[in-house]
Amino acid sequence: MVREFSLIDRLRARLPAIGDDAAVVASPAGRLLLCADAAVAGVHADLALVGLDDLGWKAMAATLSDVAAMGGRPCYALVTVSGPLGQVDVNLLYDGLLAAAHAYGCAVVGGDLTAAPALVVSVALVGAVEDDGEPVLRSGASPGDTLFVTGPLGAAAAGLAILGTGQAGVDLDLELAHRRPRPRLAEGEVARRAGATAMIDISDGLAADLWHLADESDVGVVVEKVPVAVGVARVADNAEALALGGGEDYELLFAAPDPERVEAAFAAAGLTVPLRIGHCSADRTERRLAAGPLPHLGWEHTW
Amino acid sequence: MVREFSLIDRLRARLPAIGDDAAVVASPAGRLLLCADAAVAGVHADLALVGLDDLGWKAMAATLSDVAAMGGRPCYALVTVSGPLGQVDVNLLYDGLLAAAHAYGCAVVGGDLTAAPALVVSVALVGAVEDDGEPVLRSGASPGDTLFVTGPLGAAAAGLAILGTGQAGVDLDLELAHRRPRPRLAEGEVARRAGATAMIDISDGLAADLWHLADESDVGVVVEKVPVAVGVARVADNAEALALGGGEDYELLFAAPDPERVEAAFAAAGLTVPLRIGHCSADRTERRLAAGPLPHLGWEHTW
Repeated sequence: MVREFSLIDRLRARLPAIGDDAAVVASPAGRLLLCADAAVAGVHADLALVGLDDLGWKAMAATLSDVAAMGGRPCYALVTVSGPLGQVDVNLLYDGLLAAAHAYGCAVVGGDLTAAPALVVSVALVGAVEDDGEPVLRSGASPGDTLFVTGPLGAAAAGLAILGTGQAGVDLDLELAHRRPRPRLAEGEVARRAGATAMIDISDGLAADLWHLADESDVGVVVEKVPVAVGVARVADNAEALALGGGEDYELLFAAPDPERVEAAFAAAGLTVPLRIGHCSADRTERRLAAGPLPHLGWEHTW
Repeated sequence: MVREFSLIDRLRARLPAIGDDAAVVASPAGRLLLCADAAVAGVHADLALVGLDDLGWKAMAATLSDVAAMGGRPCYALVTVSGPLGQVDVNLLYDGLLAAAHAYGCAVVGGDLTAAPALVVSVALVGAVEDDGEPVLRSGASPGDTLFVTGPLGAAAAGLAILGTGQAGVDLDLELAHRRPRPRLAEGEVARRAGATAMIDISDGLAADLWHLADESDVGVVVEKVPVAVGVARVADNAEALALGGGEDYELLFAAPDPERVEAAFAAAGLTVPLRIGHCSADRTERRLAAGPLPHLGWEHTW
């Protein structure tokens, strides 16, 4: 039996800012970006396949990715862990949470720890936009804008497939894409500065998130090419379907009117140049993939 | 079967600020107060005894109470709901969440909705301190400070006892103290302006929270009187024990050097004058209740 106070005492040694009813922090200038995500054991991570530290990393990374999708930078995180805490290695969970937070310059300043029948990790973030710039919404794309993704897709889904068939170690890059997704914070900021008009992180899958962006911007989308990550074809019969619908890659999808400016800005920042996948069209009902319709697939939670 | 997107669409009609990856809000001046709390069905609220709207109210109220305990005001909330959503009336849950948020001037600007085997409601808040004042920590009390509570105690625990024995309706005040706890936001601000040196909300029970405040401030505490809420004695054989250890009353406990100033400030603000319960002493090990030792009881989660 573990008492809450002693567990909290141990966590406090790792989280020096925590202790009062609320954390007191400096307010970033200008506007704030606020977002929250929950990661649930058995839903967002199968603990038979990945570690508690991976679940912690993923909970933090998925929320950081929301800030990336606005072109912002993360400042402060609040972490709420609910679960059967006597059976959960909370310190291992925090190893992953804090590793992701530190990797992207975010301070964990508070949260809560409560008993619950299921393990739910909830992360809330306060972010800001550098230099009081304009955050990039989903709704700003115009016809003619080029569509970019910050990297090839399908790796996270392929990594999960590898782990699910007991082949851990076969392709560490794909595995890590599932276990330790990387929020594209630097890429989001550069895209914003290079004139991105609409942006979203690819958490639901490229197809679903293209629909979101097109719906919110009231434009059509035409995808000429779906970039598939290396190794996905060895895992999946239909690699392009995995890249379109697999989800959880956390690359950014964005629209921008001046593609050369975008590519130059990424190169100048030392980042991998993003991939052109298509463009926005004036027919707001158009959802086209090469010659055929863009499938309306992707990660939708059903219950 | 309910699809996430349609449920989110329905919630969005109630939450106009939600829609992008992160909410974009104006930054309050000065420092921010950040806090988060989770409320778990079956742990923090028994859904056989209270409604989903009560669980929602409680999740929001408990987090608002953390801002109250700093002498702050709430600005923005992020709400994450994880649970078996096909079996949960999420709109009823939001009735309570939004009623509490609106009652205390807080805007719900975002969050997440995910499937999970257990119902967990996580609320993260961004607050601020008016006029760029100093937030009240738990650690500032000095020997000689008077200890106050903003109201008599034990009502929430007595209300739960009434509901648990199937006597709903017998004492609505006690019942509501359990189902709809009121965060003392106005009281916290007035206490701060009237010179409160340390403050905490009584969520764990007066005894446990006195220990917290004394430990953090490195002072002794001597309690001369435990104010018991009206009606508690009719429910419990030992009403004082319920007032000391029942928890979840969400009254504020605070220390202040000038009690007359505190009482005048509350009266001037039209608030019920807080109750003097004792004082802080120089013997940092002292934890005294009238003639005997202060019990180390209260709400500690065990698992």
